[in-house]
Amino acid sequence: MSQITVTLPDGSTLEFDPGATVEDVAYEIGPGLGRDTVAGVVDGELVAKEELLYEDAELVIVTDSSEEYLDVLRHSAAHVFAQALQRLYPEATLAIGPATDDGFYYDVANVDLEKEDLEAIEDEALDIIEEDLDIERATLSREEALDYYADNPYKTDILHDEAAGEDPVSFYEQGDWKDMCKGPHVDSTGEIGGFKLLEVSAAYWRGDEENDTLTRVYGTAFPSEDELDDYLEKRAEAQERDHRKLGQELDLFSIPEVTGPGLPLYHPNGKTVLRELSDFVAGLNREMGYDEVETPHLFRTELWKQSGHYENYVDDMFLLDVNDEEYGLKPMNCPGHATIFDQGSVSYRDLPIRYFEDGKVYRKEQRGELSGLSRVWAFTIDDGHLFCRPDQIEAEVDRTMELVFEVLDTFGLDYEVALATRPEKSVGSDEIWDEAETQLAAALDARDIDYEVEEGDGAFYGPKIDFGFEDALGRKWDGPTVQLDFNMPERFDLEYTGSDNDAHQPVMIHRALYGSYERFFMVLIEHYNGKFPFWLAPEQVRILPISDDNLSYASELAAELDGYRVEIEDRDWTIGRKIQQAHTDRVPYQIIVGDQEEEDGNISVRDRKEREANDVDLDVFADHLAVEDGEKHESPSFLD
Amino acid sequence: MSQITVTLPDGSTLEFDPGATVEDVAYEIGPGLGRDTVAGVVDGELVAKEELLYEDAELVIVTDSSEEYLDVLRHSAAHVFAQALQRLYPEATLAIGPATDDGFYYDVANVDLEKEDLEAIEDEALDIIEEDLDIERATLSREEALDYYADNPYKTDILHDEAAGEDPVSFYEQGDWKDMCKGPHVDSTGEIGGFKLLEVSAAYWRGDEENDTLTRVYGTAFPSEDELDDYLEKRAEAQERDHRKLGQELDLFSIPEVTGPGLPLYHPNGKTVLRELSDFVAGLNREMGYDEVETPHLFRTELWKQSGHYENYVDDMFLLDVNDEEYGLKPMNCPGHATIFDQGSVSYRDLPIRYFEDGKVYRKEQRGELSGLSRVWAFTIDDGHLFCRPDQIEAEVDRTMELVFEVLDTFGLDYEVALATRPEKSVGSDEIWDEAETQLAAALDARDIDYEVEEGDGAFYGPKIDFGFEDALGRKWDGPTVQLDFNMPERFDLEYTGSDNDAHQPVMIHRALYGSYERFFMVLIEHYNGKFPFWLAPEQVRILPISDDNLSYASELAAELDGYRVEIEDRDWTIGRKIQQAHTDRVPYQIIVGDQEEEDGNISVRDRKEREANDVDLDVFADHLAVEDGEKHESPSFLD
Repeated sequence: MSQITVTLPDGSTLEFDPGATVEDVAYEIGPGLGRDTVAGVVDGELVAKEELLYEDAELVIVTDSSEEYLDVLRHSAAHVFAQALQRLYPEATLAIGPATDDGFYYDVANVDLEKEDLEAIEDEALDIIEEDLDIERATLSREEALDYYADNPYKTDILHDEAAGEDPVSFYEQGDWKDMCKGPHVDSTGEIGGFKLLEVSAAYWRGDEENDTLTRVYGTAFPSEDELDDYLEKRAEAQERDHRKLGQELDLFSIPEVTGPGLPLYHPNGKTVLRELSDFVAGLNREMGYDEVETPHLFRTELWKQSGHYENYVDDMFLLDVNDEEYGLKPMNCPGHATIFDQGSVSYRDLPIRYFEDGKVYRKEQRGELSGLSRVWAFTIDDGHLFCRPDQIEAEVDRTMELVFEVLDTFGLDYEVALATRPEKSVGSDEIWDEAETQLAAALDARDIDYEVEEGDGAFYGPKIDFGFEDALGRKWDGPTVQLDFNMPERFDLEYTGSDNDAHQPVMIHRALYGSYERFFMVLIEHYNGKFPFWLAPEQVRILPISDDNLSYASELAAELDGYRVEIEDRDWTIGRKIQQAHTDRVPYQIIVGDQEEEDGNISVRDRKEREANDVDLDVFADHLAVEDGEKHESPSFLD
Repeated sequence: MSQITVTLPDGSTLEFDPGATVEDVAYEIGPGLGRDTVAGVVDGELVAKEELLYEDAELVIVTDSSEEYLDVLRHSAAHVFAQALQRLYPEATLAIGPATDDGFYYDVANVDLEKEDLEAIEDEALDIIEEDLDIERATLSREEALDYYADNPYKTDILHDEAAGEDPVSFYEQGDWKDMCKGPHVDSTGEIGGFKLLEVSAAYWRGDEENDTLTRVYGTAFPSEDELDDYLEKRAEAQERDHRKLGQELDLFSIPEVTGPGLPLYHPNGKTVLRELSDFVAGLNREMGYDEVETPHLFRTELWKQSGHYENYVDDMFLLDVNDEEYGLKPMNCPGHATIFDQGSVSYRDLPIRYFEDGKVYRKEQRGELSGLSRVWAFTIDDGHLFCRPDQIEAEVDRTMELVFEVLDTFGLDYEVALATRPEKSVGSDEIWDEAETQLAAALDARDIDYEVEEGDGAFYGPKIDFGFEDALGRKWDGPTVQLDFNMPERFDLEYTGSDNDAHQPVMIHRALYGSYERFFMVLIEHYNGKFPFWLAPEQVRILPISDDNLSYASELAAELDGYRVEIEDRDWTIGRKIQQAHTDRVPYQIIVGDQEEEDGNISVRDRKEREANDVDLDVFADHLAVEDGEKHESPSFLD
């Protein structure tokens, strides 16, 4: 048998007999690395160090200092949890238990767990870690495995599905406990330095509502206790800022059961923020030569067939029958905008044509996947589509980036940029792709922007520039996107008359600045911890009269601040309680007025950092508000 | 047999033997009236003068000077049309042929008519009028009638349905032609002074898409030719202003077949008008203490069952199935707003709470009934709902009327006001109805408003004030409405905590200023003949350079007018053609600039009345625009 070639990350190669393991390769590189090897990444897939190599492969050795190590450790932590669970509840039936981005979960059946049960299981798990049991791969014959899981319908299901025909079957064993598993795992339970069980929730077997309801236990694990503590601290902070919690406390929105899941109702406070967000981008769009349009939410499915969305999205679409014809709630706004473009006759002199719309789109997620504003059935995109000649791409992308940076800067968000180029399967000629990619790169270069090129990561219908941003909690989010499209104009047969009097096809550019208002609103709530900047704050100023005697002076002041969102706190409370409530409500400014202020004709001002200034002239304060409101960008407080 | 009592409009009564006719009563009053009698209105229903009276009745005698006379005349005109049709097309099968508000139609089958066929039929009809045939009631036995219509499935259908069991059956005869009909009719075909056939369209038998498609011929008739000519002149003007025609010419909106019927797409020009309309009322609402909210378009039908809409509107609702649960697109915005109110705990001090939303609602009309923006499937209401204590009704109604008059005045619309009071079937206590009606009347009286009291015409859930308005074509439209509701708060179990610490039910007030944006937009397009006032005009100023040499001066001027919707006409046209096009596009102001203007640093201004001023200072013009834009009300043109 001929040898196989293993290529390492530095490009060097080694030759092995077929059947060598990942660990064998590591030892070949050096005995130290061999000892430290936890797992391998073979052709992009994380595998156990025992994995046998029979073909040429690219290999990355995983040690405890690799990025992938945390995944391996957390997968082992899931096993530790399962072992602890079955020590305490021998009847518990195991389904699946993978690592996740910030920990792990295990879906189990046949056991009734509440959050308060987790402590005992966690104690048992810590014992198992203390016991420092070796974790070792074991194999069972297919027959033995089926027999071992005779009473476990989930593992049996896996044996007949993902693991169909596998023989022998890979297990991992620690002490007297084992679980069917392809690995990889750390060497022993003692490697887990920090372990914590976090939540209990319900889940469906294979995520399908038709299947059994299982109990999902979430946990996390780290190499050290310090890292765990850090994580738990950040998590507590994030929970404190959770938009569902703040959404209720600040009376921003609700998603009551009676109205339906994933269909938020925006209360006055929430709608004020959304309205400000919308007006802000509408103003920018108009300055940039965009025209607002409005398209229905409901269309004949003919349109979705023409656009291709029906073919690709039909399972996620809300469909309905009207007089025996099929209609669909729109999953995207682009076909509506293409239809408007198609209504008139367009000359090359009219291009670019730029449309924008706060367009609601509908995507049918599983109920179990819906969560607050982050996953909803109906969300609004600040959608823009522009139609231009191929020679206008660079200029239009540049103008779009002007908008993107204006928006990101306004919210103080750091960003990363990626240019995604032509994938293998794609529509459009080489020429148009080359020209488009060149113009996109030129637009980025002209602004001296650092960006990653993601080769082959563009959509099949065109290249794109993606902006990712990071919030105040250090979480990364997908941000604005500028997406070229050579496909939709073709499907809708869009045309303009060129200077040569012939018909030509325009290039379509999709772009969104916020993306989904719902998701962006959620990020902002958590990013600001509900302390919206002045221009966005639902209530901008609250006037607190020290006693009822000062109410009429308070009204005069409110009238002077006409144009801002000002409330007067007129409840029969002490000034201390009034201040506390305004603070809880995260109102940017409190104006406190008592007899002294009334007599002097001035005010006292407090901000959200609990700083206070007395003897302030209202006009001076109002002048500051005009600046703070207009500048939007993280502008200084009156009390900075 | 005892006598019956006939009560006349002046309250006087006459006694008759049962079986007296309407005509008998008229002759009893006086022989002149007897001779002039065309028909009668018995207990509110228009009947033939031959109608037999067997019970006590209220009677109005109809003569040719009565309001009802036109209906009678037009019903006879429908017969004249049918007779003429069958003279020319003996095979034509008649279905039904009623009078309408502005003429009549007749639905016919078995004949293929185009608009160009109408002239010959009209000529034949004019001959029949010329022949001055007597129109007389004739009766056939049921058997004879069924036999007469053996080949006519529609009349047979009527005989088995509306006329089930009738024997003898009433016909009306003129010359050798007759038609099954209850009447009433004029005495002879010669009474018709003006007769005109207008349109041919398709219709379904009994308006049901499942039934046969019939040919509907529209016509009109008047007592004199002069009245007909007047009508036709106004009709031509209305057609010239038809919003569907102007909608396309001014590129305001489209309703393409591919996207679906009754689902308009708003192009940039149309959306600009809608946006201005929306911003205008949003500003007024905020000034009046309303808060904007946003509710989804889709809800579980549970909500519609709770609100009662499901029971009453289910046939008109767009329903869909999501994971085996029924959902509906909202037919009304109120349940969503009630749900938001219901999310918090409300104190009597928080009331009134006022919500507004540009809320899209969905009502499934038959496809054949859809027409431009006047009948659509999805329309947006500038909906407002407020929740108040019973003692706040008058003040809130007064504030709402402030909004109503501000809106009506802004568009220069004359109005009529009606107060509709408690109907027989209603919910809510006597006390709350009495208090509410008293407060509504007090609010109207306090403003010295003339209004009709429509006794018993309120909704079952509360009394209301309706405003009707008249457009520039003299057409009357339903306008703003202020509607009290004691039912929805009950159904949604809405509560506030009173000063007595007990739970109380708020009163809900529904109000809309425009009503449907779609319908209001349609009225405005036709009311203004596309010449929107400056603040609404999609393009407000067009700059026309006399030659390309003046383009850069034109750009400077456009920059100076930043904030207005200004375009530069840069096509390679003569100045004459540029002026003509701007006129066709109904742009409020044209600025004409040539070498002379450029040299003098001034402008020439033209308006839509083709008036022109030269040597105008741009600043002076801009100052005028600021006033005209701000005042909105039919403000004078710069050139007035």
